Amino acid sequence: MQRWKLIVEYVGTGYVGWQRQREFENTVQQQIEDALFRFCKQKIAVYAAGRTDAGVHATGQVVHLDLDYKGGNQPLTGFDLRRALNAHLRPNLIAVVDATPVLPDFHARFMAKNKLYCYRIVARRAAPVADINHVWHRYKPLDIAAMQDAARHLVGTHDFTTFRAQECQAKSPIRTLERLDITAAPYDAFDGVDLRIMLESQSFLHHQVRNIVGTLVLVGEGKWTSADVASALAARDRARGGPTAPACGLSLVRVDYL
Amino acid sequence: MQRWKLIVEYVGTGYVGWQRQREFENTVQQQIEDALFRFCKQKIAVYAAGRTDAGVHATGQVVHLDLDYKGGNQPLTGFDLRRALNAHLRPNLIAVVDATPVLPDFHARFMAKNKLYCYRIVARRAAPVADINHVWHRYKPLDIAAMQDAARHLVGTHDFTTFRAQECQAKSPIRTLERLDITAAPYDAFDGVDLRIMLESQSFLHHQVRNIVGTLVLVGEGKWTSADVASALAARDRARGGPTAPACGLSLVRVDYL
Repeated sequence: MQRWKLIVEYVGTGYVGWQRQREFENTVQQQIEDALFRFCKQKIAVYAAGRTDAGVHATGQVVHLDLDYKGGNQPLTGFDLRRALNAHLRPNLIAVVDATPVLPDFHARFMAKNKLYCYRIVARRAAPVADINHVWHRYKPLDIAAMQDAARHLVGTHDFTTFRAQECQAKSPIRTLERLDITAAPYDAFDGVDLRIMLESQSFLHHQVRNIVGTLVLVGEGKWTSADVASALAARDRARGGPTAPACGLSLVRVDYL
Repeated sequence: MQRWKLIVEYVGTGYVGWQRQREFENTVQQQIEDALFRFCKQKIAVYAAGRTDAGVHATGQVVHLDLDYKGGNQPLTGFDLRRALNAHLRPNLIAVVDATPVLPDFHARFMAKNKLYCYRIVARRAAPVADINHVWHRYKPLDIAAMQDAARHLVGTHDFTTFRAQECQAKSPIRTLERLDITAAPYDAFDGVDLRIMLESQSFLHHQVRNIVGTLVLVGEGKWTSADVASALAARDRARGGPTAPACGLSLVRVDYL
């Protein structure tokens, strides 16, 4: 029995999220388990670092699984496992970009020390057609400096109840946001702006990233001040937070382990 | 009557190309003309700088049209025309990113002095799922330096018969390729490489870009040498050129006017 660590990319648009729920639901987990079954005729469960929601993407999801491969005459290599899974995943928009053997105590979720999410917004009048499923489209310009200023209040260790979904199952609402960077670049040769909000933490509460982004956009639109974000955080009340940004702009970029 | 210059973005995947052909065919031109009709109830023809093929994208297509707008009490602004067209184009993956009034002698196609195309290739084992309709996926690594070396033979003024589609209607096969740059960047944290081939010329022959790219990829794969490209060009024979790269990697980026 060998434990494997996979790095997985996917376009979350067509899936009801990472996690297998009821039967016949189209989840990323189910598709990978089905591909594994087609490859080695075994029912193998896979575990992910982050159980991304419906519509959320990944470029660096980490997955582990145990495989007792009895196929060829030679031991299975990472190259072969990757190739086989990718062949069986087609035409899903799910790709295994790396497969490495790891020690049996590796756990994709419980051993994750740091996660990096990227939330993309395109602010311009015209729809960002080439990235329509990969960004949140805002019609009006956003005040980036104001958003950056407001973001400072959220970095560090806080009770994030204001930014936590009602249904969040985490025991504690306290999290340490190591990084909350907002960068802006031109999206086109005209008025389009491409915003990338990078958020790093050991772990996130349910909808924490999307609730933070929804709130920062209120600041960018001039509806909230930076101080409003500080008081919303201090209120420890979800009703005081901004709306949940849509799933399509969010992507799990990287998971770090010790 | 006012002439307007539009900058148009589109995802070419679902369209049979720019140009309106038979009725009921889904072309970019037809969709824009239909949106114009819904906006002002007039049948107005639109003209593009580059008549992109089926599946080819644009981020900077230039289009002109004449409009005698009798709508509101005030003259139509570029802001309003853009907004109206974008509203009527939805849910097409076609967006008007800029609309400017121009002099009546402006012609998107005949006055174009320079066109810039970008051809994207992702070279790695796993499918580039987030960009599946926007890049040509090659499974094996490409020798970028060899491709760059081969590209030098094609820059400048040449008879490009070797790289011209049989059905090309241009009078002369002679074109001046001002620029043929190949840059490579990491596509992921593993073995993925993101190649961008930028080609600039006053005008291109039919399939010239895709035939050049298909040939350069033969060099990148080690099947052809740089000298083979020089002799293929000199042969002035389409049968001596490489295959036509797929449409999905190609995008019309910019059109310059005097």
